Amino acid sequence: MSKLNAVITGVGGYVPDTIVTNEDICKLVESSDEWIVSRTGIKERRKLSENVGTSFMGSKAVQELLRKTGTDPLEIEAVICATNTPDHVLPAAATMIAEQCGLKKAFGYDIGAACSGFIFALSTGAAFIEAGRFKKVIVVASEKMTSITNYNDRTTCPLFGDGAGAVLLEPTTEDYGLMDSVMHSDGSGLPHLHMKAGGSVKPACHESVDNDEHYVYQEGQAVFKTAVNRLVEACEEIKERNNLKPEDVTWVVPHQANMRILDAIVRFMDIPIERVMINIQKYGNTSSASIPLCLWEYESQLKKGDVLILSAFGAGFSWGGLYLKWGYDPK
Amino acid sequence: MSKLNAVITGVGGYVPDTIVTNEDICKLVESSDEWIVSRTGIKERRKLSENVGTSFMGSKAVQELLRKTGTDPLEIEAVICATNTPDHVLPAAATMIAEQCGLKKAFGYDIGAACSGFIFALSTGAAFIEAGRFKKVIVVASEKMTSITNYNDRTTCPLFGDGAGAVLLEPTTEDYGLMDSVMHSDGSGLPHLHMKAGGSVKPACHESVDNDEHYVYQEGQAVFKTAVNRLVEACEEIKERNNLKPEDVTWVVPHQANMRILDAIVRFMDIPIERVMINIQKYGNTSSASIPLCLWEYESQLKKGDVLILSAFGAGFSWGGLYLKWGYDPK
Repeated sequence: MSKLNAVITGVGGYVPDTIVTNEDICKLVESSDEWIVSRTGIKERRKLSENVGTSFMGSKAVQELLRKTGTDPLEIEAVICATNTPDHVLPAAATMIAEQCGLKKAFGYDIGAACSGFIFALSTGAAFIEAGRFKKVIVVASEKMTSITNYNDRTTCPLFGDGAGAVLLEPTTEDYGLMDSVMHSDGSGLPHLHMKAGGSVKPACHESVDNDEHYVYQEGQAVFKTAVNRLVEACEEIKERNNLKPEDVTWVVPHQANMRILDAIVRFMDIPIERVMINIQKYGNTSSASIPLCLWEYESQLKKGDVLILSAFGAGFSWGGLYLKWGYDPK
Repeated sequence: MSKLNAVITGVGGYVPDTIVTNEDICKLVESSDEWIVSRTGIKERRKLSENVGTSFMGSKAVQELLRKTGTDPLEIEAVICATNTPDHVLPAAATMIAEQCGLKKAFGYDIGAACSGFIFALSTGAAFIEAGRFKKVIVVASEKMTSITNYNDRTTCPLFGDGAGAVLLEPTTEDYGLMDSVMHSDGSGLPHLHMKAGGSVKPACHESVDNDEHYVYQEGQAVFKTAVNRLVEACEEIKERNNLKPEDVTWVVPHQANMRILDAIVRFMDIPIERVMINIQKYGNTSSASIPLCLWEYESQLKKGDVLILSAFGAGFSWGGLYLKWGYDPK
């Protein structure tokens, strides 16, 4: 029995049409385009309309993925959806996406791991393939972050945007695909980044609504410092475990949380910024969707054999890094 | 390279001390002990105190598991937590459980798949082990269902209770552990079983609180019929795929949703009720926690080589079945 690797064989993505500019943000809170850009690197972000949820975007991304790869929806065996913002607390957004995309033979579930969701979900989908259980797995990350963003808080409301990205995973006996992964968590990060209400500790009530407790709460300074350290550590751990020198790495694909974090990663990792995927200026922080949205936008620049390091950090704290050997040339 | 199986090597569980009897329920809604017992089989259920969440129970179950198996917390590499009721929308309950149990080297994430959560999470944890990625994975299911139960609704409020169960998964080259799994979903079940608010389609607001929309909404009749069919189908699919005759099956471990559903399964599957694990009378429907709580209670009756079929059905709809060959004798 030769070893099976799980390789990405296609990428789909979707962002809503509605653009929220920094000027729009300045109508809601006291701020300025210059202040937002200098502190976050974000110029605009997307916003999904109020009456639809995360599965709407996830389905659009999956539909594009099926179309681009010429995949019969009935061949898909599993849909793993990374999200913090499922349409409903139950059922899972994954089952709604499967329904909307005609994936009649797939089961689905959601993975909740904050901004590390896609990294953890991709590693999970790959494990099913490496174990020989499935031949076609979709990993999708979809986030309606605007539904949990406090537009009375000038420090967090410019950050978040909506979007979805999806990849198809298939088995190969060649030396491509997910080569290694490192995944970590540290629950002592809880006080610095969380949502106060809407879970089992504090279910929704009038007081929690009045107190803006159904939104992302973040202590920027504490999170910034830890994020930089952990993201760099995860990338270095991947490089060391796999004897990768800086020049071996074709692309670094970091979670898009803040341009200052991305700048710090570039500085610490000694890698030219031209080899770091960046789209935060257009979409802001789309949480678990940011990495697949980068792959979606840069797909035409990726060549078979390219070495990618994906890394993410988020609430928990949770963080991780993946080493991918890209499996196909531009089509 | 010989094939790796993932085998359960220990079980832990926890239920809160506070018992809610049918008499207590009758103080909240118009009902009677006889009505509740005849329609659901439930005599009492447990309730966690208001100021703590799901991770409290999950941690108790994991701590018992570590103690019983003599496992060093630092050996655990991954914690997968099935839950519909995480403490917070973010971060994941799994990272909080890892923190509370000293699992300093583990990463963690939550799986959301309604009442099928444990089945899907166990299959996922097993995939990581079968792929050779990890040697010690904890799969825990923990639910504070009372936090999403509407105590103004006489049809659903007697059903749900709180609790947590956890298992340790390890690799073996012997013929024990997870032998097969079938997992399905059908998103057309959404209208019959869901939560209306608290997700990205309808975030918490005063209206959603006033309208009791942060609770499980269930159309009992539609769900009952589909649940029976799907649970039986999943078990039959497992039996057929693995050439198991009724007499080969030592235990059936169904999700504990309703005694009438359990009775129907017994009838359709032609298996004596003495070989079906049942604890719904004591704990009610604890969603994803019900199956590991059954394993916890029946552990002393399980012998190495016993054939178990686990099956669950829940919102989505989502459902599945697992075939386990039990890996150890009572200790």
